This record gives sequence, C-alpha cells and structure tokens, in this order.
Amino acid sequence: MDVKIEKGTVVTVDGEGRVLKDHSLAVEDGRIVEISRRVAGEAEHVIDARGKIVMPGLVNTHTHLAMTLMRGVADDLPLMKWLQEEIWPLEANLEPRHIYAGSLLGCLEMLMGGTTTFNDMYFQLDEVARAVEESGIRGVLSHAMFDLVAETSVEEAMREGRAKVRKYNSRPGRVRVFFGPHAPYTCSEELLVAAKEEAERLGTGLHIHVSETRQEVEDSRREKGLAPIEYLEKIGFLGPEVVAAHCVWPKEREFEVLRERGVKVSHNPISNMKIAAGIAPVPEYLNKGIQVSLATDGAASNNTLDMFETMKMTALLHKVTSGDASAVPAGTVLEMATAGGARALGMEEIGSLEVGKRADIVLVNTKVPNLTPFTNPVSHLVYAARSSDVDTVMVDGRILMEGRRVRSLDPGAVLELAARETEHLLEKGGKLERLT
Amino acid sequence: MDVKIEKGTVVTVDGEGRVLKDHSLAVEDGRIVEISRRVAGEAEHVIDARGKIVMPGLVNTHTHLAMTLMRGVADDLPLMKWLQEEIWPLEANLEPRHIYAGSLLGCLEMLMGGTTTFNDMYFQLDEVARAVEESGIRGVLSHAMFDLVAETSVEEAMREGRAKVRKYNSRPGRVRVFFGPHAPYTCSEELLVAAKEEAERLGTGLHIHVSETRQEVEDSRREKGLAPIEYLEKIGFLGPEVVAAHCVWPKEREFEVLRERGVKVSHNPISNMKIAAGIAPVPEYLNKGIQVSLATDGAASNNTLDMFETMKMTALLHKVTSGDASAVPAGTVLEMATAGGARALGMEEIGSLEVGKRADIVLVNTKVPNLTPFTNPVSHLVYAARSSDVDTVMVDGRILMEGRRVRSLDPGAVLELAARETEHLLEKGGKLERLT
Repeated sequence: MDVKIEKGTVVTVDGEGRVLKDHSLAVEDGRIVEISRRVAGEAEHVIDARGKIVMPGLVNTHTHLAMTLMRGVADDLPLMKWLQEEIWPLEANLEPRHIYAGSLLGCLEMLMGGTTTFNDMYFQLDEVARAVEESGIRGVLSHAMFDLVAETSVEEAMREGRAKVRKYNSRPGRVRVFFGPHAPYTCSEELLVAAKEEAERLGTGLHIHVSETRQEVEDSRREKGLAPIEYLEKIGFLGPEVVAAHCVWPKEREFEVLRERGVKVSHNPISNMKIAAGIAPVPEYLNKGIQVSLATDGAASNNTLDMFETMKMTALLHKVTSGDASAVPAGTVLEMATAGGARALGMEEIGSLEVGKRADIVLVNTKVPNLTPFTNPVSHLVYAARSSDVDTVMVDGRILMEGRRVRSLDPGAVLELAARETEHLLEKGGKLERLT
Repeated sequence: MDVKIEKGTVVTVDGEGRVLKDHSLAVEDGRIVEISRRVAGEAEHVIDARGKIVMPGLVNTHTHLAMTLMRGVADDLPLMKWLQEEIWPLEANLEPRHIYAGSLLGCLEMLMGGTTTFNDMYFQLDEVARAVEESGIRGVLSHAMFDLVAETSVEEAMREGRAKVRKYNSRPGRVRVFFGPHAPYTCSEELLVAAKEEAERLGTGLHIHVSETRQEVEDSRREKGLAPIEYLEKIGFLGPEVVAAHCVWPKEREFEVLRERGVKVSHNPISNMKIAAGIAPVPEYLNKGIQVSLATDGAASNNTLDMFETMKMTALLHKVTSGDASAVPAGTVLEMATAGGARALGMEEIGSLEVGKRADIVLVNTKVPNLTPFTNPVSHLVYAARSSDVDTVMVDGRILMEGRRVRSLDPGAVLELAARETEHLLEKGGKLERLT
C-alpha cells in the first residue's frame, strides 16, 4: 500500500458517526482500502497517528478565493458602502495575476487549516484552477455570470461558461467546473434558464447566491412579485445540483421548495454576521430535512477561510438564536462541514472516512492545551480545535502537509507573491495607503 | 536596558489608538521606558519584531480556570441539565490537586494565546495562585462565596475571603485577590453587603455573576420584586470596583444604574451563546458610556480560553444582532480586550503600550497565510489573527514565551498532569468513559 496511518482516533463521519479509538487506515491508489485495529503489510509511507484525530478533510462550499487578496482592506462598513466604495473599485482593477496570487494564498490557508475541497465563484477561472492544481487541493470552480449589471450578453456568458465546463470536466483531476449565475438580481431570467439547461445537459452543477439580505428579498418581491427562492422555483431553476449560498431570509413556502427540490443550502455564518446580512434559519432547515453545508465566503467578508472557526460559529449562533443549548450539536455541525459539503458538490466519493472513498484525510494534533484533556473528539473538533492544530493533510492519497510542513507549495513564496500582487492592485486603484 | 523589541508594527491601544509602523520599545525593570523609531543603547536581550505586530497583552475578565479540566466533558445540553447532571457532580469531587492541574493548563493555554492577565472565580484559591505564579502570567483571583446554596455561614465565607485578600494583596506580585460573591441568587443580602464593605475597607474589588439568564431575572423579580442589577443597586453593592460578568438581560433603568455606578461589565459572548443564555446589549452599553471588557468564561462552556476568538465573536455577534455592519468595530473590540480589561480590574498600569506602563507585551507573527496581505493591523488582530499566531509573550518584562517556545512552564508536563488529574477526577465520579 502507499500510506498507512497508524493508531489514531478515527472520526469517520460515516452514516452512524462512528468514532474508532486506536484504529489504522490503509491508503492505496488515492483511496481508503482498509480501516481496522491493525493494518497488516508494508507501506511506502507510515504516519504515526497516536495522539491525533484522523478525520475527513473539510469541505468549504462557498468561497471567492481571489478575494483573499482583499483581506482587511475594508471592514466595519455597511454592506453597500463596503461593496460600492471599496470592493467593486478594487475588483475593477483585477488582472489575472492578482487572481492567481489571491487564489494560491487562499489554497495555502485552506490546506493548512484542514480544508481539502472548496466551491468557488469568480472570474478568470483558469487562474483559480492553476492555484488548485499547484496546491494539490480539490476545487469546484464556477464561472461567475451576470448580464444585468455588466455589459455581457447571455450568449457570451454562456459561451465562456460552457467552454470552462468542457475544458475541465472532460479530464480527470481535482478541478471540476459548475455554472455560476451570480444571483437572481444580477442575472436575467434568460441567463438563469440557459445556465440550468446547460448544467443539466453537461451533467454538472450550479452555484448561486440567494436570499442573502432582507433588501434583496424586498426588491425581488417588489420587482417580480416573488421572493428569490420562489422566483427561482417558478422559472424551473432549482434542483439537487444547485448550491444556494446564504438562504438567510426564506419565507414559509420557500422552506418547502428547498426541501422538495433537494437544493443544497450553503450556510456562511461569519460572512452573514460580519456584513450584518442576517441569521439563516439553520435549525429549521435541519428539522425540515433540508440539506445544509458550511462555508466561509470570501476572505474580504470573514476575514479568514477557516472552517474550524465556521464550525464553532455555526453551533454557537444557532444555540443562542433558538434559545436552545442542545440545538445544532457538534456531531451535526461536523457532518455539515464534511459529508454534507461533499453531498452538496455531488462528490459522494469524499466527505467521510470509509473503505472505498477517496483519501482526503486530515490529522489533528490533540497534544495541545486547547484539546487537553482529550474527552469527546467530536466536541473537541467543533468547540476547541483551531485550524493551527491541523498536523497533516492528504488529498487523493497525496500528502500535502505533514507535521505542519507544507509539501505541495513553498509557503514563504506564496506569501511574498500575495503581498507583492496586493501592492500592485492597491497601487493601481490609488489605495496603496491600505497596506501597512 | 533589559529588553529591546525592534522594528515592529506597534498597536498601542493608547487613548488615540495609535499604530506606529517600524517602531521599537525598550523595557527596563518590568516597565516600558521608551517607544520610538530607534531605541539607542545596549540591551541584555533583543527581540526582532520585523514582520510582527507588537500589542498589549490581552485581559480576560471572567474565567473559572480550574474548569479547564472539564473541557468537552459535556456539551450541547440545556443549561440546568448541564449544570445539575454534569458539572456540579464533577465539581463535588474536586480536590486541590485537580484545581491546580486545571489552573496550570488554563494558564498555559492563555499565555500561548496572548492573554497576560485574567480575572478568575473559584475555590481553593491558593492552588490557582500557585499556577499563576509558576506560569508567570497575571491573575486576579476571587474567592467564590455563596451561602444560599451551600452550608456556609456568612462569617465563614467572609473569614476565608478576608484571609486570602490579606495574604496576597499585602505583598508585591502578579496575584491580586478580589471578593467573589457568586451571584445575587446564591448569596444572601447579608453576605453581599459584607463583601462590599470588606472590599471597600481593604481597598480591593468585587467579582460577581449578574443577569446571565432570563430565568435568573424572572426569579429575581418574583422573589425580590426587582431585577438583579436593580436589587444590587438597592442594597448598595454596585460601584466602580465591581466586575459584573454577563449582564445579558438589563432592563431600561438598569443601564442607567450600571453607568452611574461605573460598574465594569464583563462580556462573555461565546459562553452566553453556547449555553443559550442570550445576547448582551453591547452596542447599547457602549453608546451609553458603560464600560465593557471581554472574557471567555470557563472552558467547560466555551470550550477554549481564546481571547482572539472572543474578539472576533464580539464584533460579529453585535453586527448581526443590531443589523449594522459598522457596529462594534475592530478598534473598539481591541480596546475592550486590552485597556478596557485593565480598567475593569483597576490595573491602570497595564492594558496599553505606553511609556511608564508595565511591560505586558505580545508579539503576533504576521507572516502567516491568514494575516497576508498585511493591510490593517487592528482589523487583522480582531478578524483574522488566531491565538496560534502569537509568537512572543512578556509579562512584567519577563519573557514567558519566545518564538512560540514557552519558557516559564514545560508544556508537555502540564498537558500530562492535566490528563492524569482529569482521569482521576472522572474515575472518582464514575465517568471515566468520558475520556477518549
């Protein structure tokens, strides 16, 4: 076998949520081939997992990776002022080089924090794909499309989207492409319907922002007579291949629509809080059997890409909001951040540690103050672990980090590139003073 | 001079919130003696702060340090079930050895995360003091007192409290003792008044839980005809020397009382969220000029002692609750976690980096993915830094950690001791299965 991971506490996140003490895993040809008390036979590489939790890699289902370059550039502003006066002017200056640098920085941050798969939406998809390929993690990339707020025709947007889907989805690899119609308020009905039809025809998914702010919902009802989710339902857009980011403000009937259509809600608690968008009704979603996964959103509205932080925030926010300390418990949160994310992206081959699954595996060092004493591993992962406790990361059986030493990238070079390209971007926009 | 810290980005948290790029600090006899572009003269020890933020040590104004031993033992439970079925039975078995081990673990976790001062309430204060003295950090310890829920007389409680105050406050050092009447519902009026009078007479502070849950407020109004803060006001308990933990459910008149009396509110967002206690009206407190500091509460209801996490949570929670993304901005949060905490504890000598202040200094490494690009240092500290980015920690001019190597304690030995004592404690209570 290629890799043997020995004697760890294996948090499987399988259907039964089993936690296996003192268990070992065998990895061959990028897959998990055995999980048992003792794996017999020689391995090319052996990882000592004593004192470590072995868990599935985290899945971040909504990001704008290139925006990692805008971390900390503008904070504590009302949403529209933040977008119109800060973010959009910067984005107008973005070149492929910035997108590559920001994406690579994002990949580094994510892999060092145990995230092995992410679902992105941005422009210049080839640059994001290059960062994914170099870093070794797994990415679903959406080509962002909008025709109502840009001078793009439906045909142009679709032509480019279709080309990206064909280019990447026809070959094996860690990059998959979805269509990314940005939101119901930035896309025409014609574009939304075209994206839906093409996604079905080409057998891929859809990634969209929906019902993020109360304003969006009010505008939609005034302009279309329907709330955003109702509207998407009416035009036939919704289905199990749709990852709907945010869904903060559903109306009663919209819960039913999300459930019936098998839509995958991507919950972004930190971003929703930071820009004061609102609090998504996650306990109700879960009670009604609606599928929810977790995400960070872009670093400009978070300001990290840290899924451990997101897990803790999810559990805390919905406890206090519902007034019930037993709401959204640790096991549920961990499931949303792993297997739930995999389901959202149509990747049944990842998201849990089971024989036959792809070897996207994370080891967490428990010999740290914040994970001592070593009581409940699932509780520790959600309430006490930090992304800096991630020790080793494997994707597709390939070790990307071991003992916190990143193997697939040169971290120092990635940080330098990101700093340099941020300087270039801010200088272009006349905002160089934003750098310290 | 003793120590020179060279060429860092100095986040002073002084009255003007100045951030000084490329500045150096000189430390002599435990105090900051110079902050300038270039400090002349030889130093016994030089710290290279290039690529680092230099900030005041964080102040955590409400902890139960010994409970670090109960981290992860029980989660996701309603408050009374959690207390009555899990925490209180464990606490009934606590011996001094457990309290020492838990406190030492807590000190290690805090110092590695940049917290240099904390405000504790627990039993067996000498054991907590021993941990503080060994670890090198600064602790205000309260002798917990209650006569309504334990077989202790007012005289007994006061005698022990007075003895601890006399023992520690009469000598120089990093341990200070406050009186800790637990809460208005666990202490008789006689005990509360006695504690207040003794605190005034001996020139020390008071530490109390107030208005944590809605139930507490309802009970208080039914039993006493007054909400908890009103009740404390009526009996003359409140004043500028009172650290009031939680204050989640104030009524209109109580805001006025808190402000007039100069009470120091200790805000514990994570604990309040985790046990679904509620959301303290922090923006209103700040608008009305009420002094607010930040805290983690005990690790059993958090489950960490991480002030970086607490800072981020504070900013996020009150933005989404108020619907205003500009509410409780980064600079305000950082002030609450440093200078505000120092004020709460009556320690004007710490909390900011200014000439003449005690040298409680933290260096944060910015050469990490989550702090790249290096845009706004204050925003980065609140929204993007993790406690694992803390590189160097100094208290009273003594270096406790440098380059993440802890000098004052042997971390491995502290973790082992904590694991062993947790095993002993759980075995005593017949709950050994809670350990992994």
